[in-house]
This record gives sequence, C-alpha cells and structure tokens, in this order.
Amino acid sequence: MLHQMFRVRWSAWKQLDEATRQEIAAEASGVLEEMERRQSALFSMLGHKGDLMLVHFRESFDDLNGAELALAQLRLADYLEPATSYLSVVELGLYDSTVRLHESLAEKGIRPDTPEWEQATEEVLAQQRKAMAPRLYPEIPARRYLSFYPMDKRRGEIKNWYSAAMRDRKQMMHEHGMSGRKFTGRILQLVTGSTGLDEYEWGVTLFGQRPDDLKATVYTMRYDKASAVYADFGPFYTGVIADPDELVAQLGLG
Amino acid sequence: MLHQMFRVRWSAWKQLDEATRQEIAAEASGVLEEMERRQSALFSMLGHKGDLMLVHFRESFDDLNGAELALAQLRLADYLEPATSYLSVVELGLYDSTVRLHESLAEKGIRPDTPEWEQATEEVLAQQRKAMAPRLYPEIPARRYLSFYPMDKRRGEIKNWYSAAMRDRKQMMHEHGMSGRKFTGRILQLVTGSTGLDEYEWGVTLFGQRPDDLKATVYTMRYDKASAVYADFGPFYTGVIADPDELVAQLGLG
Amino acid sequence: MLHQMFRVRWSAWKQLDEATRQEIAAEASGVLEEMERRQSALFSMLGHKGDLMLVHFRESFDDLNGAELALAQLRLADYLEPATSYLSVVELGLYDSTVRLHESLAEKGIRPDTPEWEQATEEVLAQQRKAMAPRLYPEIPARRYLSFYPMDKRRGEIKNWYSAAMRDRKQMMHEHGMSGRKFTGRILQLVTGSTGLDEYEWGVTLFGQRPDDLKATVYTMRYDKASAVYADFGPFYTGVIADPDELVAQLGLG
Amino acid sequence: MLHQMFRVRWSAWKQLDEATRQEIAAEASGVLEEMERRQSALFSMLGHKGDLMLVHFRESFDDLNGAELALAQLRLADYLEPATSYLSVVELGLYDSTVRLHESLAEKGIRPDTPEWEQATEEVLAQQRKAMAPRLYPEIPARRYLSFYPMDKRRGEIKNWYSAAMRDRKQMMHEHGMSGRKFTGRILQLVTGSTGLDEYEWGVTLFGQRPDDLKATVYTMRYDKASAVYADFGPFYTGVIADPDELVAQLGLG
Amino acid sequence: MLHQMFRVRWSAWKQLDEATRQEIAAEASGVLEEMERRQSALFSMLGHKGDLMLVHFRESFDDLNGAELALAQLRLADYLEPATSYLSVVELGLYDSTVRLHESLAEKGIRPDTPEWEQATEEVLAQQRKAMAPRLYPEIPARRYLSFYPMDKRRGEIKNWYSAAMRDRKQMMHEHGMSGRKFTGRILQLVTGSTGLDEYEWGVTLFGQRPDDLKATVYTMRYDKASAVYADFGPFYTGVIADPDELVAQLGLG
Repeated sequence: MLHQMFRVRWSAWKQLDEATRQEIAAEASGVLEEMERRQSALFSMLGHKGDLMLVHFRESFDDLNGAELALAQLRLADYLEPATSYLSVVELGLYDSTVRLHESLAEKGIRPDTPEWEQATEEVLAQQRKAMAPRLYPEIPARRYLSFYPMDKRRGEIKNWYSAAMRDRKQMMHEHGMSGRKFTGRILQLVTGSTGLDEYEWGVTLFGQRPDDLKATVYTMRYDKASAVYADFGPFYTGVIADPDELVAQLGLG
Repeated sequence: MLHQMFRVRWSAWKQLDEATRQEIAAEASGVLEEMERRQSALFSMLGHKGDLMLVHFRESFDDLNGAELALAQLRLADYLEPATSYLSVVELGLYDSTVRLHESLAEKGIRPDTPEWEQATEEVLAQQRKAMAPRLYPEIPARRYLSFYPMDKRRGEIKNWYSAAMRDRKQMMHEHGMSGRKFTGRILQLVTGSTGLDEYEWGVTLFGQRPDDLKATVYTMRYDKASAVYADFGPFYTGVIADPDELVAQLGLG
Repeated sequence: MLHQMFRVRWSAWKQLDEATRQEIAAEASGVLEEMERRQSALFSMLGHKGDLMLVHFRESFDDLNGAELALAQLRLADYLEPATSYLSVVELGLYDSTVRLHESLAEKGIRPDTPEWEQATEEVLAQQRKAMAPRLYPEIPARRYLSFYPMDKRRGEIKNWYSAAMRDRKQMMHEHGMSGRKFTGRILQLVTGSTGLDEYEWGVTLFGQRPDDLKATVYTMRYDKASAVYADFGPFYTGVIADPDELVAQLGLG
Repeated sequence: MLHQMFRVRWSAWKQLDEATRQEIAAEASGVLEEMERRQSALFSMLGHKGDLMLVHFRESFDDLNGAELALAQLRLADYLEPATSYLSVVELGLYDSTVRLHESLAEKGIRPDTPEWEQATEEVLAQQRKAMAPRLYPEIPARRYLSFYPMDKRRGEIKNWYSAAMRDRKQMMHEHGMSGRKFTGRILQLVTGSTGLDEYEWGVTLFGQRPDDLKATVYTMRYDKASAVYADFGPFYTGVIADPDELVAQLGLG
Repeated sequence: MLHQMFRVRWSAWKQLDEATRQEIAAEASGVLEEMERRQSALFSMLGHKGDLMLVHFRESFDDLNGAELALAQLRLADYLEPATSYLSVVELGLYDSTVRLHESLAEKGIRPDTPEWEQATEEVLAQQRKAMAPRLYPEIPARRYLSFYPMDKRRGEIKNWYSAAMRDRKQMMHEHGMSGRKFTGRILQLVTGSTGLDEYEWGVTLFGQRPDDLKATVYTMRYDKASAVYADFGPFYTGVIADPDELVAQLGLG
C-alpha cells in the first residue's frame, strides 16, 4: 500500500491554455480511472501539506513501483510536486485476533517459531488478505472523508511497548479495540504495517462520513492505555474523496 | 476552520506593472470581501513565517476545500506561496462546561456512551456551534492583533494528561479557566479541536487589543498546572488584522 | 522588536551591472540610515544562516509591520531572501527587579492581580521602557559583535521551571544576575519577551567588544542553576555591526 | 560503503526528445554497468524519498569520492537531484564474534589495548573484509528487495547502551543474533559502521526475497532487548533491485 | 574558525564551455591558494551533505567575515550553494590542562574570578593560541581524511554535565583524554568552542591517515563516561583533503 501526496504547481498549470489543460486532465483521468478499479483511490487534500492524495493497493512492491513510474510519465506529473508518501503492507487489522490465533495454536500444542506455527499464522494472514480487498473498496465511497497518519508504539526509556508483558499488551489492545468499536459504521479503519519499510511502524487510514467522526475516533481512543501511554503519532493528512472525473474540477477547469 | 499562511513572492509581484498589480489586487479584494462576510478574516503577518494569513470558518470540509481551491484560482495566487496551514473544527471552548454537562447527565442517571448521553452531548455542542459564529465575528475587528498556535496535552513518560484522573484534569482546567478569565475583555480566545485532523490536538487563536495582552495571556497561563506540566506548544504565528481593502496597501500599491 | 535575517542572492545580484548595483545599494542605504536613527541596526552575519541581520525597535506591531513592508518594497529586496526572523517585546531585563517590585508591593499590602498591583507593575514597566531606548542605542556601536538566540525556561517532565517555587526561582535568577554581572562593561545584554508571539519565551541579544566575551558570557552562565537545569536554547545567530554606509562594501561593491 | 539516493527531475527529463534521452540513458547504463561489476548496485526506490538508489562498495574513501564525482559528470546527473546519502565502512557483522575474539584473546593472556590485541583484532577484521565482498555480491540479485536504515545504540538518560555492562551487552547481542537467524536464507543482512562518519552509528542494509520478510525481520527483532530498549532508528529507505539495463525502463523509455 | 560546506551546482556548471570553466576554476584556485597559506584548508566532501568544505582560521570575526565575502565575490560562487557552516573559536584543546591551571592558581592563593586569575588564564590561552597555528598546519596534509562534528555536553533532566561536581567532571575529562591518547599519531584532534556563537558548544575536527581511525576514535571514546553519558552529537561531515590545484579535477575538468 502506497499513499502519495502531491502539491499542484498552480502557477505553471494556470499558464497553460484551457484546451491543453483539458487534454492533460483527460489523460490523467483516464489513467486514474483505470487505476481506481479496486486498486487506487483519489482524494483532495485540505491544507498546505498537499493538494491531491493517491492511495494505491497492489499485490507487490514491483506493482507499486510500476504505479509510481506510470504516474510520473503522465503529462499531469509535470504540474504535480511529490510532497510526501507512505509505504506499508496490509496486515491483520486486529492485533487481538493474532493474539487469539497464537493462543489457539498454543492450546493445540503448536509452539511459537516452529514451521507449523509459522504456517498456521501465514494461512490466517493469507485468508485475511484475500478477504480484505473486496470488503474494503465498496465501503470507501460512502465514507467521503479521510484521515491518514503513521504511528509507532512507544519505545521510551520508561514506557516501552516492546518491553511490556504479552499479557498486558493483549489487554491494552483489547481495550483499544473495544474503544474503536464505538465508531463501527461511522468509521472504517485500515491499519497497515510499515516496520522496516518506512519511518513509523504502522499507517492508519480512517474513512468517515463526517469530519467530526474522524476527530472523535482518534480523540476517544487517545484515552485508552495503549494510545495514552504507548502511541507516538506522526503527521496527520486529511482529505475529501474525489472521483477522477472530478479531477477536472479539482484542477480549476470546467 | 482552516488557517492558511502565505508568503508573497515579492520579486515576481514587483516585476508586474502598476496597472496589472492593481487589477490583480482588485480581483483578490473582491473575492476576499465576499469570503469575509462572516466566514473568513485576513491578517498581515509579522516575521518571516508568512506575509498573509487567512482564517476560514465553514460549515463543512467540502466548503473549506472549496475555499482553498477558489483562492488557488485567483491570479494573485501566482504571487503567493503556501507557507503553512492548520485544520481544526470548532468545539466547546470551555472544557469545564463539558465536564459539567457530563456531571449533570450522570446525576440524571444517563450513563456515558449510551445513546442518550451521546445525544445530550451532541445537542449542547450543536447549540454552542450555532451560538458561536454570530458572537465571534463582530468581536474580531475590535481586537486587531492575533496570535495563533497549535498545542497538545502532553503524553510524556512521566507526565501524561491522558493518564491523569478525570477529577484532576477537571480541577486543572478549572484553574486554567480562572487564570484565562483575568483577560476577559482584553483577549478573545478561540480553541478549536484537531485531534486526528492535523499535527496537534488543538488550535488556539487569540485576538487582542494590545500585543502585550497576547503575551501576558500566554505567559500568565503558563504557570497554571494544566499548562506548566501538561501543555506542549507548536509554532506561534502573529499578525495584525487587515481589511481586504487594505490588501492593496499590504501589497505595496497605492 | 523584530530581528530579520536575510541571505543575499549573490548570483542574481552579481549579474547586475556595477551602476545598477550602486543605485540599488544607495536606495537601500538611504532607507536603512533613516531607519537607523535610534530604531534599527544592521549587522553582517557569520556563516550560512544569513548574510544580513536587521534589528528593529518600534513602538507598535503596526510599526514593525510597516518596517517589514517598507523593506520588501526596496529594489534591494529582490536580492535578499528572508532566512528567518524573531518577534519579541521589550520587557524588564532583570527578573530580579520584578521580584523586588512584587515584594515591595506585598509590603505595602497590595495583593497580586488587584488593579493596584497591575497599575504599579505597569508604571514600573512603562518607566523602564522609556528609559531603555535612549540608554541602549549609544552603546551598540561600541560593542561591534552580536549574538542573538531565543530561549525557553524548561518545562520538562522532571525539571520544570513553571512548577518550581517562586522562592527558588527568585534565588536562581539572583545567582544568574550575579553571574552575568561579571561581564558588565564588556557585554550589553538585552532580554525581550516572546511568549505567545514566537517559538520561544525570550530572545537574548548580546552585544560585545570581543567575540570571546560573547562566548564567555554564555559559557559562564551555563553553570548557573537557572541555565544548567532550566534553560532550553534555540539557534544562535552571530554578526558584526555594519553601517548602512558599509552596505555597499558588504555587497561587494566599491 | 556509500548509499546515494536520487530523485529524478522528471519534468526536465521529459522535455528532452526521445533520441537524446536514449543517448543519455545509454551513457549512464554503460558507466553503471562498469561500476556494478562487484562494486555498485542500483535500486528503484519506493515513495517520495527518492527514485534511484546506488549502493557503492569501494576500497577507500578516495575511491568512493571518485565514484561520486564520476556520477556527477554523467549527462544523466543533470536530471538527478541528490536526495540523501549515507557513508559507512564495512565491519564485523556479528558483534557476537568480536566479543568471542576478545574472550579468546583474554584466555591467551593478551590484554585489551596492547599491540598484540590490536593486531589480532585487525587480522580477524582484515580476513572478514576480504571474505565478505565475494560472498556478498552473488547473493544480492536473488534477493530483489532492499531496506536500508541507519541506527544508533541508545544513549538515553536512563537506558544507555554505552553504560551497560559488557556482559549484558554480550548477552543482548547474542539474543539479537539468534532472533535474526530465524530469517537466514530469506534475508541477507549487512551491518556497516558509521560512528564518526555519518549521523548514526551503523547502517543496516537488508536484502530480501519478499517485502514481507523485510518487515518481519525488523518487527521480530524489535522485541529483542537490544532493539526494544537500546535501538534508535533513523529513516527507512525501500527499493527494488534494478539492472542498469532496466534503467532505460525506469526512466520511462523503451 | 569557520567551517563552510558548499554543494556544487553541477548542472549550471556543466553548461559552461570548457574554457570558461578553466578560467573560473583558475580564479578560484588562485584565491584559495592565497587563503591556504596557513589560514584555510580545502576538502572534498563525501555524500550529499556537500561537495566542498573550506576550513578557515582567522585572527578575528571581521577577518572571517571578510573571507566569506571574498569567496562570495568569486565567479565560482555562482556555482556553489552554501549547504551549512559552523562558527567557533580556538580554545584549550585539553580541558584537563585548564583544570590543572586552575588548581595551580588555587595553590598560589589566586582565587577564581579575581583579576589575577583572569589574567593568568588569559596568558595561558594566548600562549596556546600562538603555539597552535604553526603546530597545526604542517600536520594536516599528512592526515588526508577529515571528520567534523559539533557537540554539546548534555543538559538532560537526569544527566546534566553542568550540574555535575567539578571533581567528577575533571575525572571524566581525564579518562576521556587518556582514551583519546591511544590515537596519538594516527589522529590529530582540534576542539574549538562555540557556546553562544553557534548551535552546539564545541566543534570537533579530526584529521586522520585512515578513515578507519576516524571511526575508531569516536567509537572508542563513546564508551568513556564523559561521552557515553554526557555527550550530545550534531551532524557528522566527512571529507578528503584537496589541493586548490586539484580543484580543477574536483570540478570535473582536466
């Protein structure tokens, strides 16, 4: 999964004549529409951090790299400045269920770090990956507003998630999950992993029907012990969903 | 609510002839005056962080996004460089009264996180939102000087607001409110929420009649326990109110 | 008080012919000389952080804003890039004497935060403001070297100035003042307040006859408890005083 | 060892006609192929941090400097913007074995910091350096995905690696090594030293067959005490291996 | 002492014809050779932080400022972008000997902060300054590799050098000196002071015959208590000495 944030080079863009801009926007809309068939989504961003956000889902790094390079070849790319990006991989959204899986394996006598354990874990993950994509896409358009932020579990000198006992971590993640469940239906949450791939350990993408819900979700969960004590947050990026069709409007045309 | 800070591209701007600059400034003044009817305010900033600040109040993220895009289409936008911005939503300015509301609901036997509790809270918030806008705007012009800064409640390893007891937080916010009340009449304070939307949890916009009052307010409150121990401050942006009419003067014309 | 730091755009500047550069420098010298009559001072900076520093003293934010805008209209401004700046207001340089004033008011039975207390404090401040300007300016030229840095009193999780007892703060500031007094005559120190106005709580501007004295002052005071334990320092900017007349030489002319 | 990250200046590059781009890419491919014979490797990066990464292995700083300067002379260099870089030297990858060497020397009565001790250490290092290069290169192509990040051992006020007892450090590095061994075959790890040379103390370059393995390695090891408590991580850079031949494709040609 | 780091604007530079580049490089070589007679040294930097480093030693800030301005007037300056710089003053390299001096003064009954004490300290410093320059320069060419980094003594909330007892600081600096002495002959170390002048308290410039020695020195000393517990390091800049004559080669000519 790759989040790409771009700023529009408005001055250069506006210097083009109307016909050229329409042509360039049409080329871009076409490519983005193709990308969007279940694989990418376009957002209009709020504030100076960027004007457009593209969220790509792909099967492999090679495909993500291909998407990046394809965009760079668009004529529109000359009028877009890469502001930032975030690379992560889709994983189990519910920490809780990994813990449950591990418990169930333990009950079956399958020990951690054995081939059987690895295989069982991998199977569950594969199922979830397969299940996630079709479940995810139809839900995005109904939730127009997006907030994306990367985060770490704190590794402080006193409060250190990675030194906390498994039992405590499990309980904290359970409380955290309960707290998040209050927003079921109003918020769709996607947690992706990026340890070793980008600056933080996770990326969190929230989709909501109302801006207030984005804020309420993060604010409410901040009082959970898992967040209050152990979460370190990166920058927040906020946007409104945009059809590639609307790109023309986003770019001040028509 | 969106704060937008811009730097003027003076060199490019000054290369235009006088007539063109007047024309561009007139177009911008017109659009800004329209925006200003209770919805946006213009400030001339002090120091290198920016030359102009626009503060937009809108009903929705879509409207804020629309305001941003409308500004980007102005011819003046070619001479403005987005320096920074801040996105937040208007909320209860007085933490104290939320706490009081919750107590009153508790007395009525309405438990937190029940539909009744949610609804009662939402009603109070809706009332306050409605009451706030008309109350706010007439007061800005009388308080020419602005200081804007985002802030967090600290989540340190030892001092952590989100781990503090509700009772203690209530008492600290009460002291904080009392401390702020000394400046009633001299300072108009607007606290907006941005958890999950932008880098900090709140934005604080102070409007004052005298620059000294801006400093005195923040300095005095820094000794309150809520600030002394639990506040983490972001950058500070300072400005002087400017009529869109004055924009012409701001831009070195006439 | 506004410190403005600029980088010279040497390449663009050197592309002008000699006559044009002389003309532009003469225009700037004229305006700066006017500004300098007790209100602004010009420094040539050391290192990459900037080439020129302007230090403005004005009666109001409007006047500071006016000075900024006047400079932006100079033809020279096309060859200056704003690197950074710092906004602050002149206040009591000696914390010690505020404490003494408050003690004397307490002895007279005037309680803090009463109108009498406010008024007495305001009167002393007004006197000091009035006394400061004429005392200050004649002393700058004799102390050719400048070091400017913003600073905070630490609000750490363990060491927190704003949680320390008034009595301890008073004693620390007394020791700090004594320590600074060793440099009387060699160093002129100006402490201005910026809480709520810019990133730090104070700006410190040191003027010295010898670079070693700038270093010795800050180094010596670093062992005072007030600095050792409670000071957080921002960036340091160092410069050599320059006559507007010399600007021509600074800019590689004549 | 020098990691160089570049962004492609796509707009300028795309303004060239096809024939010129082919010519420039061919010149670059030729030089890179020469460099690649066991000495340099090319990666296509994911995200906004860069488009191309070059990893150079050389015998000396002079040779690395020569490689940098040779690249700067390429016509392609006009279309590459240096984004970042990292300088380090190849050293013992296994802390554990240094410790073992030191123990074995101690058993022989050779005391630390004597010429004999220095010489024995140097000999082992020289052997390892010689052994490393031929062992390393054939393995890279089979592991298409790269993650590079610099890191420090923490020198916190409470948790400080450099104050920990040798015995504890040895045990932690042993656990860390065991933890890493789970990924043998799937991940090739290269730890290079940069204390005194660049911002962090080590550079870690991971080569993997699957992106998930890059993440799993770093995530798993994060629970080791050596990482959980004592590691401070810098930015992460992720890429896909690219043949110089493929450079033409990377650059949107062919 | 001023360290100046520059990036070469390769694209602009390479657009010049060969004859013009030779002419510009010759002008720069001439000026740099003049500067180098015991006063400045030129290094070719490794990595993206810069391409050229100039290290200037001068008698006064005015002379350093003059050197900066003279360089800015070179035609070559149009092709150099100032990347960063560091300002410091030469002082006693051995903390230990200051402590010894102070002890010897104490034995003679000369009390700190008396005129006699100041004068004796100043005399020793003046001697050392005079002795340092001629001793220093002949040694640089033999030690081709440079590492420069600024550093602070930590003023943490728990570990604070400036709150540590004089006796402990003395012992730590003694251990630190002993640790450094292992590298005598292989490394030439120059510690300059910058408290109050630039972002850190000291600048450390290491000159070595082998890159490994630069790393080994800093790594070894990191285990000394003075470094392990009390040192905060800034960025590291690494380079290879370059004759002004070689500048032509550095710039891709000849």
